This record gives sequence, structure tokens and C-alpha cells, in this order.
Amino acid sequence: MTHDSDSVVSSDLVDANRILAHFGILDAFGHVSARTAPDRFQLARNMAPALVTGDDLLEYSLDCEPIVGGPYRQYLERFIHGEIYRHRPDVGSVIHSHSPGLVTIGLLRGTPLRSVWHMSGFIARGAPVFEIRDTAGDDTDLLIRNASLGASLAATLGSASIILMRGHGATIVGRNIRHAVYRSLYAEQNAQIQLSAAGIGELEYLTPAEALAAEASVEAQIDRPWRLWQAAACATPHSSGQP
Amino acid sequence: MTHDSDSVVSSDLVDANRILAHFGILDAFGHVSARTAPDRFQLARNMAPALVTGDDLLEYSLDCEPIVGGPYRQYLERFIHGEIYRHRPDVGSVIHSHSPGLVTIGLLRGTPLRSVWHMSGFIARGAPVFEIRDTAGDDTDLLIRNASLGASLAATLGSASIILMRGHGATIVGRNIRHAVYRSLYAEQNAQIQLSAAGIGELEYLTPAEALAAEASVEAQIDRPWRLWQAAACATPHSSGQP
Amino acid sequence: MTHDSDSVVSSDLVDANRILAHFGILDAFGHVSARTAPDRFQLARNMAPALVTGDDLLEYSLDCEPIVGGPYRQYLERFIHGEIYRHRPDVGSVIHSHSPGLVTIGLLRGTPLRSVWHMSGFIARGAPVFEIRDTAGDDTDLLIRNASLGASLAATLGSASIILMRGHGATIVGRNIRHAVYRSLYAEQNAQIQLSAAGIGELEYLTPAEALAAEASVEAQIDRPWRLWQAAACATPHSSGQP
Amino acid sequence: MTHDSDSVVSSDLVDANRILAHFGILDAFGHVSARTAPDRFQLARNMAPALVTGDDLLEYSLDCEPIVGGPYRQYLERFIHGEIYRHRPDVGSVIHSHSPGLVTIGLLRGTPLRSVWHMSGFIARGAPVFEIRDTAGDDTDLLIRNASLGASLAATLGSASIILMRGHGATIVGRNIRHAVYRSLYAEQNAQIQLSAAGIGELEYLTPAEALAAEASVEAQIDRPWRLWQAAACATPHSSGQP
Repeated sequence: MTHDSDSVVSSDLVDANRILAHFGILDAFGHVSARTAPDRFQLARNMAPALVTGDDLLEYSLDCEPIVGGPYRQYLERFIHGEIYRHRPDVGSVIHSHSPGLVTIGLLRGTPLRSVWHMSGFIARGAPVFEIRDTAGDDTDLLIRNASLGASLAATLGSASIILMRGHGATIVGRNIRHAVYRSLYAEQNAQIQLSAAGIGELEYLTPAEALAAEASVEAQIDRPWRLWQAAACATPHSSGQP
Repeated sequence: MTHDSDSVVSSDLVDANRILAHFGILDAFGHVSARTAPDRFQLARNMAPALVTGDDLLEYSLDCEPIVGGPYRQYLERFIHGEIYRHRPDVGSVIHSHSPGLVTIGLLRGTPLRSVWHMSGFIARGAPVFEIRDTAGDDTDLLIRNASLGASLAATLGSASIILMRGHGATIVGRNIRHAVYRSLYAEQNAQIQLSAAGIGELEYLTPAEALAAEASVEAQIDRPWRLWQAAACATPHSSGQP
Repeated sequence: MTHDSDSVVSSDLVDANRILAHFGILDAFGHVSARTAPDRFQLARNMAPALVTGDDLLEYSLDCEPIVGGPYRQYLERFIHGEIYRHRPDVGSVIHSHSPGLVTIGLLRGTPLRSVWHMSGFIARGAPVFEIRDTAGDDTDLLIRNASLGASLAATLGSASIILMRGHGATIVGRNIRHAVYRSLYAEQNAQIQLSAAGIGELEYLTPAEALAAEASVEAQIDRPWRLWQAAACATPHSSGQP
Repeated sequence: MTHDSDSVVSSDLVDANRILAHFGILDAFGHVSARTAPDRFQLARNMAPALVTGDDLLEYSLDCEPIVGGPYRQYLERFIHGEIYRHRPDVGSVIHSHSPGLVTIGLLRGTPLRSVWHMSGFIARGAPVFEIRDTAGDDTDLLIRNASLGASLAATLGSASIILMRGHGATIVGRNIRHAVYRSLYAEQNAQIQLSAAGIGELEYLTPAEALAAEASVEAQIDRPWRLWQAAACATPHSSGQP
């Protein structure tokens, strides 16, 4: 894959933090990263996404070691990012969120996340649930706090665009930052619609062919929402702060 | 039908974009149009509704060709508008939205949208579900991207005021912009109330006679909410930006 | 009952319109009134509650005739107010709303509104459902558009503090404006909590004795929320505008 | 336990009032306190939390008598605080709220609050329901208005971090103010997720070992959300005012 220049990545990464916080996809927790080279990625230091500025971005190797050390705290779960970049060369951006609809579906073993509308056709590429007990037993803190757990998560993700993490959250990938932000927002909406309908009756889901066709059409237009979201979220530094 | 002057249409059309975005009926997607002559209508260029200004409005023929060409992108689904105006001479405005309650009911085959209160009596004129598979097979991107699909949608709409589009959204019509905006907002509320009640027990719906009588009474007062919505939504250019 | 001076009533009545609109109890429709003498009450002219100022208040007789005529439009449903004041000398303020939780419970014949917490003990005094078909047949517009329908509504209300109106909304009464506003806000919250629980399992409701004891305790403290609501809602003239 | 200096407590206590109001955990009712010495605690005078300033804080003995008398009104339910501090020397802060998800679960006897995700592992230490009828009969106003009721509540709380109060609200404890605020916000989110899932199917809850491990990991990072919440809630004095 080709890479945007570092300055473009940094600017979009700051905006992505603000946008995801503004719309309640990230609260004080969760994080978003971007690949800057085949073996490097950018991620903020340990802080609330809504408050991230360009000065807070760190460069990491895929081993999740910062390229330039310093007196900052790091995200415990940076291994989500490093291991997915290692296993998925097509991925340019990774978002780890705790958005409520995705958490809810992750708890319901008989209710897989499925594509309900054209805005989230990408879900049809798979939406596995990561059960950390299968890898690490039933007494963990559920966090992806080392490379081994990150590799298990990446293996379960496989070629999908999203993975639900039982009792924890979700991780979404895209070819670049705007793509991953788009998917994070509409995956949550898909979950909310699916949950609303599931309490009432049988749903008609997209066929796989519909989902892939819709993904191709809609994801070609990602710059349209991106510009709107920038305007709404980036003018005020922490307009939501939602818990 | 008579037509408002072009400048009145343009002013209301800009306001309608802002209002529908402010209240979450449109996000970065969806669109609103207005007929300006028996064989012409106005619609914004391809952009987020919350950001539309008077300079962004294009004039179209019913074939969905812009009257004046230019270097702008067009909405892929402008055929929703052109074909409904062709089939329904009584219609002066068309709104295509993805509002969540309407999307949810569109997924539930055993749960048709029905009029639950006096604010949305117009639903009793019919609320068919457009299943694109019946027309174009089960591998489309669900978009109404040509005149043929637009004509199928318009035929299924028939004489109704609203049509749900399975896995996609809804399209609402009115005699003018304010009328269609009113219906879009209250159709979504009707859907939310209906969904909330449907998970619990049996609902009492309006009789057809009640619905038509309520429609006549309430829709005579549309200027009252319109002025409020203008005040709330049009002072700040993109106050919501909701995804 | 004693009456506040007209200027106090007017000031609280303007604030009540703003507060009820700010918190989504009223949208562009619905209205709030206050009794100013045994046989008179104040009510705004026909307009969105969020935009009401002191200049918009009209004085009415219990026959719902304005004391001073003028070129203003009147609310069609002013008879809700006049007839309740006639039948209930203890009532100093009446609010007619379309708040969604109350509308939803009004549709569900097997689910009466019941007091779920100490904040809305007043519901235990009764929460009848007005079925307009019993009085006026099944082809009305559901509106209380004359004194006869208002008298039927008031008779069904009886000695209760709230009445649900099937397919339409609710009407809430209080000894004064602040009391009725308090009840309107917490009746809606009671409905939302009740609906949320009803989809899951059996609820434990307040006993009648608990409800009356809670009503006495909590309603003695109404000035505390009122001051907060004034601060939140009355600084900006139409901060919500919610449809 | 050690104690923060009085001025730190006061500053955090004012912020806690603002934060809890901003995010809808407290409305005009509910209160938050902090222990300032083994036998003393601070609590605002009787007022809406969103409006509390440093001048409104009172110092109390564990008997819930103000150390310095004055012409102010006191919270009726200050005994919740005094008796929990007496029974739980490990507790540095107590929050009494009416947040809707916790109220709803408190009504559902067959649905105990359980830990659904890593953000609220503390729930696994127990989440008993206080049924005031067991102590004081079925005709109370549900309020904890004396030391005897406070002692019963504290006894039912036992060593847990949260207690639901049927038909009333919840009380949450923490080792200090930030800890209790954190738990109040995420207990409500846990309840909302649990309610959303419970209407659909069987949930997978955290094991006790997972919950305790997650509690240890996540609660070590409480300063991260605190700073964000301060930024969001404390700039504007009463930004929500939510009823």
C-alpha cells in the first residue's frame, strides 16, 4: 500500500480522535492509530481522545515500542494496533472503541452482528467475536496488554473489517483513517438498528452480494461525511466528553 | 399545482437541508428537492445537507439532467426525485432519508409502519416497503441509481406519502418543502413510538378515518413548527453533524 | 384556592413554556396554562411554546373566549384547559403535551401508566386513558376542539393528576405552574422507565401508600428543580426546538 | 485511610457535582459527599447539584449534624452518607443518584445488576437491592430520612460498591471522589447495556475473576476520564440541567 505523508496522517489522526469522541464512539478510553510506513504507525500517548493534539502523537514500531522514548504514559492496549498492522498489510488505520451497541451485540452469543443496511456493507466481510477466555483463560482483565494477545485478536479478525471483543468493545480497521472512522460510526449505527429490530421480530439482512456492492458504492464517498464531521467536531476541542 | 417563486423555493430548500440535518433525519447522506415547474426541480449538488447554501442548488429536468452543466458532482440517487415528480403531479417536494426508526421498520417484514398518533395521520395513506430485489435481483448496492429503478420506486409508492426502502432508508413526499419536512420528522417519531410499543404489547392504531381527519387538521398548521425549526436549526450552520 | 398575582403567573408561564420545550416535553405543539382567577386562565396565542413571550399571553374565560379580542390565532384545543378548570377547582395549571413515553403507554391498552419511583407518586392518584371513540366515534381528528369534548376529557380525568389521550398525548394538572411542570417532566420519565422495564420482566410498582407519601415529600421541594430548569432553559430562547 | 486536604476535597466535590449533573447521573436531586476526616464528611446544602459552588459545602459529623449551624436547608437524605461512612471505613466518597438505568434494574427483581464489561468490574463485588419495605413497611416515602434507615441501607450494602434502592435510585461508594464519580457513570452505562441486551437474548457476563482483574486495571486510570469530564462539564456552570 501507499502511504500518505506524515503530516497528512497526523492532521487526520488528530481530527479522527476529535470526531470519534464528539459522536460518542470513543469516551475517555479507546484509541485510533494510522500506519505511516510498512513497519510503523502513529498513536497518541495515554490520554483522552477528545484532548489529543498533534504534539501528543507517538511513532511506534510494530513491536509497539516507541521510536523516540520519553516521559509519557502509553496506552496499555497498543498491541491491538501493532499486531493488526503486522497481520494485515492492507490495513492503514485501526480503531479500538467501546461503543455501546457493539458492546451489547458482543455479549449476545446468539446474535451476531450482521449488515442491516447499505451504509455498513463491510460487516458482511465478517464480524467475529473475540472471546479472550479461549486464549488466556477466564480470569483476565479483558485487556489486550501484550503482543501475544494482540496476535490472537488479529488471527481471529482474519480478513474481516471489524471484530467484537466480548465484555470489552470492538476493533475496526480501514485502508486509511477516514475509512476506519467511517466504519466505526456506521458499525455502531448498524448495531443500534439491529438491536432495535431484534426485540420485535425477524429481520431481513443484506445478502452478501448486496453488502459488497453497497460497500463499494458508499465507501467511494467517504470524503463527504468526513468534511461534515470535521466541521461539527473539530471547531470545539471537547464538545462532548461523553462518559 | 401552482408553484412558489424560485427564490422562495431556494430559501426554503436551504432551510430544509439545515433543519433535516439538525434533527438527525439526514446525516451526511440523504437529500431534499423541490419542484420549480411541472417538468423541473431543484436539488443540491453532491454534498452533506448540513452544509448546503443557495449557491449549491442545481436545477434539473425530470430526466435528472442538470439544466446548466458544470464541474460539480451530482447525487447518485437523484432519480428518486425525478421519477416521483414524473409519476406524481401532486408532489412538490421529495425527501430521501436514512432516519433510523424508518430503516428499522423497513427491515421488519411483519411490522408495517402504521399511524400511531394524530401527528402522522398521512401514514394511513399507505406506507409500502420497496424491496429492490423484486425489481433488480439480490446483488444490487440498494441505491436508486437510474431512471428505471426510480420508476419502480415511484410505482410502488403509488398514491402514498411515504415509502420505506428495505436495507436503505425511506422517501417522503409533500405538496411543498415545508410539508415534506414536516412529514419526514413526524414519520420518524411515529416509527420510534411504534417500535417502543411493539416490544411490549398490542397497540391501538388510528382508524383510517381518524388518520385522514387528523392529517387535515394538523397539516393546516405546518407553519408553526417550521418557524420554530428555522430558529433552532438555521442560526448555526452545522449544529449537529450527526453521523 | 388562592392565586398568585397576574405578573407572577405571567413570568412563570413564559418560563414554563421555555422549560417544557427545552426538555422535549412540548415541541412546536402542546400548551400550558395557568388559572388567574376562579373563572379565568392565561394561555399563549397559537404558536410554538419555545417562542412564547409575555406579550403572547391571552386571558380566557372558562368558556374559552378571550377576554380581549384581537387578530391572533388561538389554540384549537384550548377547551382542554377551560373544561378542566371548570371541573377541578383545585387545579391551578394545566399542561397538554405529546411527550413520547406517555403517548406510547397510551397506545398499549394492557399497560396502564403506574408509579415506578418516588419522583412520580402522583400517578397513583390515577392515570386514566381517554378514548375519544367512546365519546365521539371513530372518525375524529382526535383533537379536543370544543367544550363538549373538553368536558368529557375532564370527566374521565376525575380526581387524577394525569390523563393519557390515546393516539394523541397527555394532559397533566397541578396546583400551580411549577407543580404541573414538575409533574409533566417526571411523568414522562416514569413512562420511559416503565417501558424500558416492561420489555424485560415483571416490575415492582409503588404501593398506593408509598406513592402518596412520596408525593407529599418530593412535591414539597419543587422550587429546587424549578430554579435549575430556569437556569438551563430560559437563558437561550429556543435552545432545543426538538420536533 | 488517608485523606486529601480539605481544599482538594472541596474542589473535587464541586467538580463532581457539575460532572454528575452534566452527564445526567444527577438531575435536580441526588447528592455527592466526601469524607474529610474519619468522623467527618462534606456535603452541599439542599440545592441542585449543577449549581453547587465551594460556598455551598457543609461539614457534617457522622450523626449528620452540621459542624457549623446556619440558616441553610439540608438534604433530607444526608443519612445515606453518614451511615455508610460509619459502617465502611474504607469509603471516602458516597454518591446517591436516580440515574434511569439503575432505577430500571432496581424494579426488576429477576434481573440483578451484573458486570457486563471491563469498565464496571466493581459490580461483581455485589449489587444488592435495598427493599425499604423489609425495614420500614410498605407505606414509606422511600426516602432515607433518618439514621436508622441509613444504617439499614449500609448494612444491606455490606462490602459492595453499589446498592440499588427499589423505586428510588442507587448509592455508589468509592475510595475518593473521583473513584465514586467514575463508578456512578459506568454503573449507569452497565445498566443500559444490560437492559438493551436483556430484551433480546442470553448475555455472557464477566466471571468474578475477570471482573476483579478488570477493576484493578481500569480503576488505576481514573484520572484520565476525570480530566476530560472536568473540561466538558465545569467550564459552563449548568450545561445540562436535565430533568
